[in-house]
Amino acid sequence: MAFSITVLGSSAATPTSSRNPSAVVVNMDYTYFLMDCGEGTQVQIRKSKIKLQKIRRIFISHLHGDHFFGLIGLISTFHLLGRKDELDIYGPDGLEKVIKIQLEASQTMLNYPLNFHLTNPKKPEVVYETDEHFVKSFPLDHRIATTGFLFAEKLKPRKVKKSFLFYDVEITVDDILKIKAGADFVSDTGRVYKNSEITEDPGAPISFAYCSDTKYFEAVIDHIKGCDVLYHEATFMEDMRKVADEKFHSTAQGAANIAKKANVGRLILGHFSARYRELDKLLAEAKEIFPLAELAADGVIIDLSANKKTR
Amino acid sequence: MAFSITVLGSSAATPTSSRNPSAVVVNMDYTYFLMDCGEGTQVQIRKSKIKLQKIRRIFISHLHGDHFFGLIGLISTFHLLGRKDELDIYGPDGLEKVIKIQLEASQTMLNYPLNFHLTNPKKPEVVYETDEHFVKSFPLDHRIATTGFLFAEKLKPRKVKKSFLFYDVEITVDDILKIKAGADFVSDTGRVYKNSEITEDPGAPISFAYCSDTKYFEAVIDHIKGCDVLYHEATFMEDMRKVADEKFHSTAQGAANIAKKANVGRLILGHFSARYRELDKLLAEAKEIFPLAELAADGVIIDLSANKKTR
Repeated sequence: MAFSITVLGSSAATPTSSRNPSAVVVNMDYTYFLMDCGEGTQVQIRKSKIKLQKIRRIFISHLHGDHFFGLIGLISTFHLLGRKDELDIYGPDGLEKVIKIQLEASQTMLNYPLNFHLTNPKKPEVVYETDEHFVKSFPLDHRIATTGFLFAEKLKPRKVKKSFLFYDVEITVDDILKIKAGADFVSDTGRVYKNSEITEDPGAPISFAYCSDTKYFEAVIDHIKGCDVLYHEATFMEDMRKVADEKFHSTAQGAANIAKKANVGRLILGHFSARYRELDKLLAEAKEIFPLAELAADGVIIDLSANKKTR
Repeated sequence: MAFSITVLGSSAATPTSSRNPSAVVVNMDYTYFLMDCGEGTQVQIRKSKIKLQKIRRIFISHLHGDHFFGLIGLISTFHLLGRKDELDIYGPDGLEKVIKIQLEASQTMLNYPLNFHLTNPKKPEVVYETDEHFVKSFPLDHRIATTGFLFAEKLKPRKVKKSFLFYDVEITVDDILKIKAGADFVSDTGRVYKNSEITEDPGAPISFAYCSDTKYFEAVIDHIKGCDVLYHEATFMEDMRKVADEKFHSTAQGAANIAKKANVGRLILGHFSARYRELDKLLAEAKEIFPLAELAADGVIIDLSANKKTR
C-alpha cells in the first residue's frame, strides 16, 4: 500500500529561481497521477524519484498558464521517449484544443493514445474510479472555470489476520473474500471463528485534496471533509486580503480556516506569490488558526500512508 | 560597444537535468535578442545576469517544441510583471496562432503590444535593421520550415583618434561626422590633417550566426561566411550520421565542416542529443576538422567584442 504526494512546483503565476509553477504528483498504490503541469514540470519529475513514463493520468485544475504551460512539453517528451501507454488528461473545456494545435504546428503524430476528459466546473463529479480508489473533481471559485480534486481510497474491507491464515484449517480464496466482507468462518469440523476474532481494522481510507486556485470558498468543505492532507493555495498574506479577493486567490489564513472547518489532518500551503522571499510569516499566520500547517517546497514528498491513524 | 551571446539551453528535443532546450540571448550594444525559446527559458534568463524585461525581440527558428514551448510562458510572465514595452516576435507561419489560442484559453489580455513577423523559410531576408546592426534570416534544411539567423554589426565608420580631439583646433560635430566618413580635416589656419593620421581602424564588424536545427547544408555557407562565432547544432556523433540525415540533423563533424568552409572564427556546438552524457568524444570529432570548436553549456557567456581581431 502506498499513498504519497510529491510537490513539484509551489510558486504562483511566475516561476522563481527556486520555485516552479504548480504541479503535484500523487502516488496511489504505484499508479501515478499528475495534478497540474506548469512550465518546467517535466524537468521537475526527472529530478524527483518518479519515472517519467509512470505518469498515467493528468488532471489540470484550470487554464491559467502556471497550471498547464508545461503540459505540451511533457506530452512531446513522452512521445520522443517512445511511450506506447495511453495517457488520460482531465481538464476544462479548451485544453484539448490548445494541445492539439501545438501538436499540429510541430507536425507531431503521437505514438501513444491521448484521451481528453472534460471536467465540470459547476458540480462535483467522480472522474476516475477503480475498486480501490477514486478521484473526484469539485468546483473552486476562481476567475476562470477551475476545479479542485480529491484523491481517495475507498472504504477498505477488513483485513484477515495473518495468524489466522496459519491456523490448521482448510481455507479457500472464496472463504477469504467472504471473511473480508464480514462473514464468520466455519471450519470442516464445525468450529465457528467470529469475524471480529480473525480480522483486524484495515484503517480509515486515505485521502488527499488539492485546492488551487481559489478565493476563500466554504463550499469546498463538504468535498474535502476529514481528508488526511489538504494542499491549499495561499498566494497572499493577510495584509493583502483585499488583493486576494479581487484576484480570486486565498490568503494563508483563508486556507487555514478551510482546513480547520474541514477538520483535515495536515494542511500544505502552496502557490506562493513570487513577492515573498521568506515564507515564515505567511506560515505563522496560518498556524495561528490551524497549527498543523506546513509550507510546500519543490521536491518535498509527503507520505500519507506512513503516519496514518484513525482520527 | 557590446556584442555577446549567452547560451540558455543546449539540449536537443527533451530537456535533461543539466541541459535545457534551445535558447540563446544575443546582446548587441545592450539591445537584447532572444533566439529560440524552449521550455524553461524564462527561468534560465532569471538565472543569467540578463534582466527579463530587457528582451526586446524574439526569433524562433522553427516550430518543433524544444524551440518554442517556453515562449507562451515568457510572454505571460512579461505581462504579469507589468511590461509596457512592445515585443516583436519573428518566426514561421503558425506561431502567432499557437500563442494567441493560449492567451485566449487563459483569458489573458496583454498589457503590452505584441507584434508578430513572419520569417521566410525559402530565401534569405533582412528581418531587422538599424543604422548599426542587422539581423538576417536564411533557410536551413530541416523536417519543417526552419531558418537560421545572422546577427551582425554593419560596416563601421573610421574612429576619430581621441588624441586628435584634444588638439588645439576648433572642431564641430559636423566635422567629426565628415572625418568618420573619410574626409581630411582642414583647420581655421588652413592646416590639413590627413584622415589616415587622425582616425583609426574601427575593426571589422562583429557577427554571430545561429544554425539550429538543420541537416548538413552547404547553402548556409554563403550567409555565414567569415562570422566571428557560429552556433551550429551537433545533435549526433559520426557513428549516427545515417540517423542524423534521416532526422534532418547534423553531426559534430558536419557542423565542423560548415565552420571550416565558411571560415568562421569560433564554432560553438549545441543541441546535443540527450543520449550523450559525456560530450568529450563529440567535441574531439569536431576538433579533428575545425580546431576552434567548443561545446555549448547552459549559462555560458561568449563575449565577441573582447577578442575581436581582423581575420
